[in-house]
Amino acid sequence: MPVCFVTRTETFCAAHRLFHPALSQEENARLYGPCANPNGHGHNYKLSVTVRGEVDPATGMLIELGELSGILRSRVIDKLDHHNLNLDVDFMAGIIPTSENLLAAIWRELEPALPRGDLWELRLEENEQNVVLLRKEC
Amino acid sequence: MPVCFVTRTETFCAAHRLFHPALSQEENARLYGPCANPNGHGHNYKLSVTVRGEVDPATGMLIELGELSGILRSRVIDKLDHHNLNLDVDFMAGIIPTSENLLAAIWRELEPALPRGDLWELRLEENEQNVVLLRKEC
Amino acid sequence: MPVCFVTRTETFCAAHRLFHPALSQEENARLYGPCANPNGHGHNYKLSVTVRGEVDPATGMLIELGELSGILRSRVIDKLDHHNLNLDVDFMAGIIPTSENLLAAIWRELEPALPRGDLWELRLEENEQNVVLLRKEC
Amino acid sequence: MPVCFVTRTETFCAAHRLFHPALSQEENARLYGPCANPNGHGHNYKLSVTVRGEVDPATGMLIELGELSGILRSRVIDKLDHHNLNLDVDFMAGIIPTSENLLAAIWRELEPALPRGDLWELRLEENEQNVVLLRKEC
Amino acid sequence: MPVCFVTRTETFCAAHRLFHPALSQEENARLYGPCANPNGHGHNYKLSVTVRGEVDPATGMLIELGELSGILRSRVIDKLDHHNLNLDVDFMAGIIPTSENLLAAIWRELEPALPRGDLWELRLEENEQNVVLLRKEC
Amino acid sequence: MPVCFVTRTETFCAAHRLFHPALSQEENARLYGPCANPNGHGHNYKLSVTVRGEVDPATGMLIELGELSGILRSRVIDKLDHHNLNLDVDFMAGIIPTSENLLAAIWRELEPALPRGDLWELRLEENEQNVVLLRKEC
Repeated sequence: MPVCFVTRTETFCAAHRLFHPALSQEENARLYGPCANPNGHGHNYKLSVTVRGEVDPATGMLIELGELSGILRSRVIDKLDHHNLNLDVDFMAGIIPTSENLLAAIWRELEPALPRGDLWELRLEENEQNVVLLRKEC
Repeated sequence: MPVCFVTRTETFCAAHRLFHPALSQEENARLYGPCANPNGHGHNYKLSVTVRGEVDPATGMLIELGELSGILRSRVIDKLDHHNLNLDVDFMAGIIPTSENLLAAIWRELEPALPRGDLWELRLEENEQNVVLLRKEC
Repeated sequence: MPVCFVTRTETFCAAHRLFHPALSQEENARLYGPCANPNGHGHNYKLSVTVRGEVDPATGMLIELGELSGILRSRVIDKLDHHNLNLDVDFMAGIIPTSENLLAAIWRELEPALPRGDLWELRLEENEQNVVLLRKEC
Repeated sequence: MPVCFVTRTETFCAAHRLFHPALSQEENARLYGPCANPNGHGHNYKLSVTVRGEVDPATGMLIELGELSGILRSRVIDKLDHHNLNLDVDFMAGIIPTSENLLAAIWRELEPALPRGDLWELRLEENEQNVVLLRKEC
Repeated sequence: MPVCFVTRTETFCAAHRLFHPALSQEENARLYGPCANPNGHGHNYKLSVTVRGEVDPATGMLIELGELSGILRSRVIDKLDHHNLNLDVDFMAGIIPTSENLLAAIWRELEPALPRGDLWELRLEENEQNVVLLRKEC
Repeated sequence: MPVCFVTRTETFCAAHRLFHPALSQEENARLYGPCANPNGHGHNYKLSVTVRGEVDPATGMLIELGELSGILRSRVIDKLDHHNLNLDVDFMAGIIPTSENLLAAIWRELEPALPRGDLWELRLEENEQNVVLLRKEC
């Protein structure tokens, strides 16, 4: 039998700057390109969370999408939207806000909060050309 | 060697209402949210079917996309488009039209009809934020 | 000097059926195509409202987009979303829910409610291929 | 005879904060909503420039789109992309970076630089829901 | 009272090459950029046709969108889709296939064929960044 | 621990014609549909390359997306964009330009060029409805 996955996508806008504190501005520019510019820049991010599990035969659902949206918004989106990823987000304190690091931090926030199914994948779209994802296994 | 997948996407618009006949309107509203509203609502759905298999070295194709589109339209889309999922669709009779249940029914319609390759994944996009998929294995 | 326009877009999903009560089912099918199917169908609609006016030099805004969104949601979207346009919407009572008629009714709801600027255009996207709009003048 | 318009769209990502220096943080929050948050946030902006004019019968073009793109990039996009609109952009010095004000400043940069046709419209998409435009006349 | 507009969008894929027969390959490359490459290239084009007119109070429609789609497909899209604009299209014989020239030719094909309303605007999207349109007046 | 994937998407426009030299025009039309039309046609293709690997704890990145874009452009996109897949591309010589064959050829170009991570998936979007992908394993 095929396995079921449910995905909810939310958007947020945030500022960030990629900068390693042990390196010079020149070294940061070489490493991170224009993402190291001193005063920061920002994005409209799209974050998708995918839950994997079994469909409840009584309800015909794996997880109700409004419920999944509520968890995602209260745990993650409300802390990120219209904020600065370097300065404002408790679960990003001391972490360079690359998409890879941001996804790993979001994984830690979301995984214990899901009432049904397993956290299977997190996908972050910085823009239509740049996407990073974490997936449990392949 | 990498494995090949071919995906065709078709759209349809349909009305539905999520309602469990053994429950009260209040219990249905708690379970399904506004999707339980009494007079129904609707969506522009996007349905994607993914076939997995080997590329025929003579033609350079796994399956011709026009042929895959034809099967998808005649078996599934023509029965769903501009119809009511609760009332009009033979293969949904007696089934609550959640995305999960709809995908499972479509799987049963499509799997025996593919001339080449295996049915690997069905993906249903209710809107850009809500996506459900069935996949053969992970 | 160029003129300024601000546009806010909201989405809603709704069921509808196009049916003229003075005509037979056959005549309705000829007139409205599959939109006359007896049990209805639905769409994810996108509604855009455009306000035209002068930028306030003190704030640098014509109208704050969050405020415009709030008016649009409370006056229009909340009554349409997850509802049936033929049965559930007070300002559509007795009106065939074509996109043209729906826009004219929304115009009457929104025009007196705008605190700044003039209602310039309403645009309704039934899907990516079908769009109807009302514009004040050309 | 119909009139011809050519539109080129470029994207940039930038940080901004809406804040009026003569007002308190509380008053700014009331005026600009979460856009007044202290550490700024950002967007993937889409900027579209529309030129209006006559088609050259020899070439069959109003303006070559690669040439229009080059002017737009060198005059505007390269100064905005991966920068902070409050701190980094010469033509925005002393201006609150609302979309309305940003468009008016871009208009001043672009209008004298077009080799053919007239600047007809500038459109700024903050995200899919929020759009502001300046148009020469109606 | 606001004026009503109805827009239908269809897509087609076609090859083209921009080349003026009286000029050398070098001069064509300077004029048309990579669009002058000798063996041609192609696009997924989106063509939108906008009709302006009055809503029929009996039907609540300006023009039925299925009917508009049928006219657009039979007069224009079927001749362009999966063809070469330089070699295959009767109404483009002897015309350099820029977007401006293609739109003017489509205008001549469509304008006399509309049963209701006036042809108001034709919009051709070569890709998301490059758009050309013809509009009856401003 | 979840595994990390980074995806970069680039677009190109190209002409192609599907035609097997050992078959007649009638047999090719039966096999490839309108893609066998004699003078070719074209598409705006979207190509996505996905790299799988470990995040470098020092930089917080698997691979810098600007670097991945540069490899993709110089090895593949610059040879395809504004060209004819049947006539102009060295790594497609003697190969029928189906999406399946094009992806296999791109795989051979890209796999040895990646400085970090493994080539995991190539995805080619001919248009929004037709997608082909190669994936290393499932």
